[in-house]
Amino acid sequence: MPAILVSEVGPRDGLQSIDPILPLSVKTAWIDALVAAGVREIEVGSFVPAKLLPQLADTAAVVAHALKHSGLTVAVLVPNARGAEAALAAGAHKLTLPLSASETHSLRNLRRTHAQVLEDAAAIATLCKSAAYDVHFEGSVSTAFGCTLEGVVTERKVVELAEALMAAGVDEVGLSDTTGYANPAQVKSVVRAVHAAIGTQHLTGLHLHNTRGLGLANVLAGLDVGITTFDASLAGLGGCPFAPGASGNIVTEDLVFMLEAMGLDTGIDLPRLLDVRKILAAALPDEPLYGFTPDAGLPLGFAVARG
Amino acid sequence: MPAILVSEVGPRDGLQSIDPILPLSVKTAWIDALVAAGVREIEVGSFVPAKLLPQLADTAAVVAHALKHSGLTVAVLVPNARGAEAALAAGAHKLTLPLSASETHSLRNLRRTHAQVLEDAAAIATLCKSAAYDVHFEGSVSTAFGCTLEGVVTERKVVELAEALMAAGVDEVGLSDTTGYANPAQVKSVVRAVHAAIGTQHLTGLHLHNTRGLGLANVLAGLDVGITTFDASLAGLGGCPFAPGASGNIVTEDLVFMLEAMGLDTGIDLPRLLDVRKILAAALPDEPLYGFTPDAGLPLGFAVARG
Repeated sequence: MPAILVSEVGPRDGLQSIDPILPLSVKTAWIDALVAAGVREIEVGSFVPAKLLPQLADTAAVVAHALKHSGLTVAVLVPNARGAEAALAAGAHKLTLPLSASETHSLRNLRRTHAQVLEDAAAIATLCKSAAYDVHFEGSVSTAFGCTLEGVVTERKVVELAEALMAAGVDEVGLSDTTGYANPAQVKSVVRAVHAAIGTQHLTGLHLHNTRGLGLANVLAGLDVGITTFDASLAGLGGCPFAPGASGNIVTEDLVFMLEAMGLDTGIDLPRLLDVRKILAAALPDEPLYGFTPDAGLPLGFAVARG
Repeated sequence: MPAILVSEVGPRDGLQSIDPILPLSVKTAWIDALVAAGVREIEVGSFVPAKLLPQLADTAAVVAHALKHSGLTVAVLVPNARGAEAALAAGAHKLTLPLSASETHSLRNLRRTHAQVLEDAAAIATLCKSAAYDVHFEGSVSTAFGCTLEGVVTERKVVELAEALMAAGVDEVGLSDTTGYANPAQVKSVVRAVHAAIGTQHLTGLHLHNTRGLGLANVLAGLDVGITTFDASLAGLGGCPFAPGASGNIVTEDLVFMLEAMGLDTGIDLPRLLDVRKILAAALPDEPLYGFTPDAGLPLGFAVARG
């Protein structure tokens, strides 16, 4: 198995923050191309009411298509137990429930208090355990490194919520830098604190943003403390529309370039991945596509060096 | 003393790669504002023939102005002994001679072989040692992490040139990722190899680019192996016009944000530094200004957190 799992979140996180609604055929072509490039986990959508996010209204159909790819982990976001029921009915492999460390942000984003989200987590854990197939349930602590509404988020708060999520029955906790506030020292410190509280095997993934340009530096910090899964969005599509001022997922292309250049195997064929941008460029002509490596191109001798 | 020295290279590296010629009064206002924000080292120009780089033709006058700031290290680039003579006549505190690890790039950039540049280094070292004041002479190995013309640059070649520069009499060796090819694992490995060869005290600074988005991750790698000086350019102005495809200095604002957020003291007041952009925006209305932190703004509570 490749050493590092790059989890592509563009079809969910990217699309939810832009206005255009992609037809199902483009979403499936995009997913197929990602898989062909070697991507092994894709967050393909979110089971939220269609009136809230019409861009993701066809998530069940996207899941059904994505399930055809053997070896692909089909991940979805679920805001509550109703969403989880739909996700399980669709057959998603991995369900992620966000729990914002900032209660202000939680109320704004999900209209729920911490206690209410934790009740949801317990209900979803029960649903997952009684599902007819193996489901992985992640509780993702968002605004884990700071909040545009509350400011500083303490390490203690993040640890407390990670423990509460584990107690509610999640299989794993993730941490999200929703607002792009994280710095490398903080990433190391918070991850270590959560690892100490719930065990290293229960926190393996980070969702980092590049809002202030520190995305890849924060990945490097995560690698240093044993993180092996990183979320990213092809062409940097997306962000969190509910956190004012937040934007900018890590660009998958730049992330894969960094990891592969470092000799860390992602299982992803970078030239093929760079080609997938063409699908987005054609389907979303008015959306900016981000990324440094796509503009600069691969270093001369890069393919040779990687064998 | 602050823990980390951020060396601003915009007035040299930035200006040499754009067409507009800034009047002396703008350059000095820019430098004054940088110093007021806490910047302690600025590469203010280059002693090259005016016909090659008319943008830097007034370097002697810029040096004369910059010297008025007590505590500021006034650095300049010199391509050869003639440039060094002019730099010493002007009173520059620090002279940097580039030596490209790629001989192809060296011939293209300076029109000199390695042997010729090393002869220059020895001549300049002699000039510096006989100067009437204390001068710091750095030999900077450019294309140290790969070359757009030659491709891979071996660690052995970089070590060999670092040793040759020390033998020629430089006070210190620097490493430049001229082409934006470096990755964090490589930065650590090359720095460690050079440290082992010439001593940690003789390699304290890196000049990194953000061409493929890895600039700050590479800084983090440098910090991990004891590097304490990082070059950067306000608003990311500049790059190397002689290395095709190369561009993009690290943005000073993003670098300072990362370091200060990590609790590493730079001595720089970030809000004041962000204000300095206005000088560039007004003087260079047609040049793109880069940087994530300036767009996103400082995190809520950032100033409070830094106390």
